[in-house]
Amino acid sequence: MEIVQRILPMKESSKKARSEGKVIGFVPTMGAIHEGHLSLVQEAKKMSDVVVVSVFVNPAQFAPSEDLEKYPRDPTRDAELLSNENIDFLFMPKVEEMYPANYGTFVRVNELSEKLEGVTRPGHFEGVTTIVLKLFHIVEPHFAFFGQKDAQQLAIIRRMVKDLNMDVEIVRVPIVRESDGLAMSSRNVYLSPEERKAATVLYRALDHALARIEEGERKTKTILKEMKEIISTEPLARLDYLSATDLIDLKDLKTLKGKCLIAVAAYFGNTRLIDNIIVEV
Amino acid sequence: MEIVQRILPMKESSKKARSEGKVIGFVPTMGAIHEGHLSLVQEAKKMSDVVVVSVFVNPAQFAPSEDLEKYPRDPTRDAELLSNENIDFLFMPKVEEMYPANYGTFVRVNELSEKLEGVTRPGHFEGVTTIVLKLFHIVEPHFAFFGQKDAQQLAIIRRMVKDLNMDVEIVRVPIVRESDGLAMSSRNVYLSPEERKAATVLYRALDHALARIEEGERKTKTILKEMKEIISTEPLARLDYLSATDLIDLKDLKTLKGKCLIAVAAYFGNTRLIDNIIVEV
Repeated sequence: MEIVQRILPMKESSKKARSEGKVIGFVPTMGAIHEGHLSLVQEAKKMSDVVVVSVFVNPAQFAPSEDLEKYPRDPTRDAELLSNENIDFLFMPKVEEMYPANYGTFVRVNELSEKLEGVTRPGHFEGVTTIVLKLFHIVEPHFAFFGQKDAQQLAIIRRMVKDLNMDVEIVRVPIVRESDGLAMSSRNVYLSPEERKAATVLYRALDHALARIEEGERKTKTILKEMKEIISTEPLARLDYLSATDLIDLKDLKTLKGKCLIAVAAYFGNTRLIDNIIVEV
Repeated sequence: MEIVQRILPMKESSKKARSEGKVIGFVPTMGAIHEGHLSLVQEAKKMSDVVVVSVFVNPAQFAPSEDLEKYPRDPTRDAELLSNENIDFLFMPKVEEMYPANYGTFVRVNELSEKLEGVTRPGHFEGVTTIVLKLFHIVEPHFAFFGQKDAQQLAIIRRMVKDLNMDVEIVRVPIVRESDGLAMSSRNVYLSPEERKAATVLYRALDHALARIEEGERKTKTILKEMKEIISTEPLARLDYLSATDLIDLKDLKTLKGKCLIAVAAYFGNTRLIDNIIVEV
């Protein structure tokens, strides 16, 4: 595994790989690597000749009030975990390398970025799409791998790639969960033991929804109401949103049909967690 | 010359040329081809193996109040003029091809897009950068050629390419003028005979500035004041702005130093014209 800190040598390595006819798979991350990230890497390895992982805590996707400063960083451990996976390149640029003085260009995906996460985190997805576009130009991947846990991010990046006529194929990789159902997240380390225990309520609510859908329930009002009741039994949980939408445009559904996304966001103390399931009916 | 109307075959042609090691030169236009465009094409031919010209009147860069509907369109004549130049590909997509239903992704360059033209034409440059980014992804040029007449556009596109870590090199091509000094523009056809005559005042003012700078004048206040006086002698001219800035950040200069841009915008009837000179002191 080669660690690359500057844009130019990363570009040169990608161009060399492409010129040799190799397929490049790319996993963009903010580090604090966990099993979820490693499942993205494993999927990338299956589909590509050369695997590039980036570790970059992107300031542009944090609002001033958010957790940029305390976001978990452990580059040495990240490098070790990724090296164990035998990836080819670990791209770890500094903030000044990605956003030099005078930086001024931002890309946004309208509408899709304004709902769900976008309500509580205005500007967040503009930061995400901007850094992902930059990284795609630097790494020039054939495939890029994103976790389903950030389902809205995935929908937005797919839309950006389509709208901007880019060739990279976006691959969705399923959520990896702890044994008690909690979705893997770099932010789980913020949770106190009590909050950590309470946080399983998100998956319990989603699992209930899944069971009800398997029973034949299709009315989202009923399903979301029951999920809300489950979450309200957990005093440490403060619900942000619950939604049932289609998977492409994230439009609210009255009745489940086709591929649907059931998503939830909630606070446990100061920590905001998200989770979701995809169901096809 | 091959005329291409769809994105996919244009991409395939570009990829084929690249895979054969050919250098692609690209000239994006809104059609109504005139000598100014042809000078861009000639420059592209000098520097490239394969020349692609696009003709696309981009709705996203017109405000609702602007001249999208009446903007001059003559695709048959454009194709003839470009065929005479022996270009390789003429890319003429339909609006629905570039902006399909549900389109929602836009790129903007902050600050640089808000001054000069951006004051009178809010949103204009977001439309420009969005279409240029899309076209760059489709055509994948090594070089792209832009006229100095749209000096701010050029500065903004250079910034976008740098910020977004793209590899295309932006080439500036000098302004082509009519024999009486009027800068070539597709919008010149809007001018009545009286307005057409009056419009030469822009170049007369710029030419005066050039002479004064050659004499040794460096104070922009003095130079712009004299230019304003010249323009005010023309009753059909209504000045929009006069500016003296650096060429990269378009920051106002008190004293000319290094490479400077002196730019002017004015209305003649309902037609808004722009012009500029670059001076190095």
